[in-house]
Amino acid sequence: MRLSDLSSHGGEWLRGDGPEGDIVISSRVRLARNLADHRFTTRAADPEKREIAEKVRETVMHSRFAERVFYVDLEKEDAVQGEFLVERHLISKELARGEGPRGVAFGSREAISIMVNEEDHLRIQVLQSGNQLEEAWKGANAVDGLLEGGLTFAFHPRFGYLTACPTNVGTGMRASVMLHLPALAYSRHIQKVFQAVHKMSLAVRGLYGEGTEPMGDLYQISNQVTLGLPESAVVDNVCRVIPRIIQYERQIREELLARERRALEDRIWRALGILRHARLISTQETLEHLSAVRLGVNLAVVEGIDLKLVNDLFILSQPAHLQKLEGRPLEPGERDEVRAAFLRRRLAMKEGPAENPESTGT
Amino acid sequence: MRLSDLSSHGGEWLRGDGPEGDIVISSRVRLARNLADHRFTTRAADPEKREIAEKVRETVMHSRFAERVFYVDLEKEDAVQGEFLVERHLISKELARGEGPRGVAFGSREAISIMVNEEDHLRIQVLQSGNQLEEAWKGANAVDGLLEGGLTFAFHPRFGYLTACPTNVGTGMRASVMLHLPALAYSRHIQKVFQAVHKMSLAVRGLYGEGTEPMGDLYQISNQVTLGLPESAVVDNVCRVIPRIIQYERQIREELLARERRALEDRIWRALGILRHARLISTQETLEHLSAVRLGVNLAVVEGIDLKLVNDLFILSQPAHLQKLEGRPLEPGERDEVRAAFLRRRLAMKEGPAENPESTGT
Repeated sequence: MRLSDLSSHGGEWLRGDGPEGDIVISSRVRLARNLADHRFTTRAADPEKREIAEKVRETVMHSRFAERVFYVDLEKEDAVQGEFLVERHLISKELARGEGPRGVAFGSREAISIMVNEEDHLRIQVLQSGNQLEEAWKGANAVDGLLEGGLTFAFHPRFGYLTACPTNVGTGMRASVMLHLPALAYSRHIQKVFQAVHKMSLAVRGLYGEGTEPMGDLYQISNQVTLGLPESAVVDNVCRVIPRIIQYERQIREELLARERRALEDRIWRALGILRHARLISTQETLEHLSAVRLGVNLAVVEGIDLKLVNDLFILSQPAHLQKLEGRPLEPGERDEVRAAFLRRRLAMKEGPAENPESTGT
Repeated sequence: MRLSDLSSHGGEWLRGDGPEGDIVISSRVRLARNLADHRFTTRAADPEKREIAEKVRETVMHSRFAERVFYVDLEKEDAVQGEFLVERHLISKELARGEGPRGVAFGSREAISIMVNEEDHLRIQVLQSGNQLEEAWKGANAVDGLLEGGLTFAFHPRFGYLTACPTNVGTGMRASVMLHLPALAYSRHIQKVFQAVHKMSLAVRGLYGEGTEPMGDLYQISNQVTLGLPESAVVDNVCRVIPRIIQYERQIREELLARERRALEDRIWRALGILRHARLISTQETLEHLSAVRLGVNLAVVEGIDLKLVNDLFILSQPAHLQKLEGRPLEPGERDEVRAAFLRRRLAMKEGPAENPESTGT
């Protein structure tokens, strides 16, 4: 498979038809695993890392996954390819920008990915569309079980799974849910969500995880603690808070519609107008407007635009995706131009003005 | 004629096909005249003013104008009607908001208008499309001559025409040209134009004349001095400066295209995007975006939009025009909604995306 085949659409987890898909983009569980008979990546030299990668690759490629699995040797790929996989949430920035023998295996639906020689020898990730953290956990468990058929993981009877960083010891699990919370963001109630979430020892991060600022009103809620809790408790902890945030977002959406429908519609339509007309647009501005349009689609303010398309555009308008699309490296200024042209094409009105101005005139 | 018949299009002087129509919207000459055998309006009581209005109306309606002439008795019209005529540049704010017997006669093409009982008994105005101040002067002279067949104007052999305010004594003439100077405004060179114009004893005003802030990058340049100069010198004074401002604007447009074409195109297209998508929009914001779109039409950045349409929209999106269009009074917030719907209808894309995204992609 050529990676460029992926560049025109997002992974299946973006299809937007999962439970509570209007607010929950995706649910993800990742498990950190290390081979019992090898040094951690922080200690291993390149030959050992190459041996680890080869072992994992062999096992992965011979395991019986429900879908086709591809392996990408990141040592052989250029920086754009790495960033491309980061943008698709298949690998972390750390893996992309790292050095030495490392890679990623992922399924054709992009629900499963297994990073090799990131901070741990293996980082198993399962992504599901919408609010399905339990499903993601089952999926990750299944992958974990399949791989245990061919690999022996470092496990301590008292501490649990051993990991390169002590914060991951135990379950080695991070459970996270990505939420789209535009109404809470506009109304500045989002700060209250942050406070409540932090009190529950959960973390809030942006679209691209740790160390990224929230953009496009997308927030990832995840657990912080991996030690001293069974996996089910980790999942439960995150799961418990999600419905309350969803309900809060819905409530504020209704309040905005009741109190200032016209101003909200105006904000949404202007965002679409800019995406359809701009000749230069940054990633950050694109995400802001996409967020408004996504809200518009979910509130049926905007019709004729597919939720899947909007979800996809959050990913496809990122820098490496644009460079794959153009088939060449682009300077930042040039990217803004290519991004604008790309958005115009994808959001073009189909038959006359999609908004049907007559029907919403007065 | 019902005034509402006018509300769907602007006067002929907005048709945009006059000389230098890309930069010069219109040229205007007005003459202040008073009847010799009556007190100035500042001194006359209502019965006398009514007599004056009646005399003028009689003379106007029996004069042989090249076009049909209508007379509106403003004492009988409501405030919206008055503002409507102000927005069309047929009368002044002062006349609209005044009291007592007063009116306006205007031709079907709206090139000629004669205000009655404004500051002076008569204010004769001739408007021409584009850079045609000489033509406007000839037109005003012709109207003046026609009316002198039926009326005797207050004239002093040494001072010239006598007017209610001493600043108008002499020729009673104001010659003005309305310019669209977006490139000078964006690049902030407009301040230099103001300085040069003031040094020549000319005034710079906004779209609606005295006391109005420039909006939509529209500027009226007019003479200040009416006394001690023959009419030809007044016209010449204004005429001399216009080509230099036009050349300056063209030069900056070329510089912007050469140095930052993409940023300029982006600005223009975003303006159009907002006009095509907004659900709430103020007059001020509308004029700003129309200015950018007008520049885009003139630079052939935007195609498929008629200059006449953009010129018209400057006037038709004003509050009183919207109220005529809706056939009822509108609160300011409601106006912003009606204005947005009106602009969407008038600027709707015709066949698919008018901007043809493929052709301007990279």
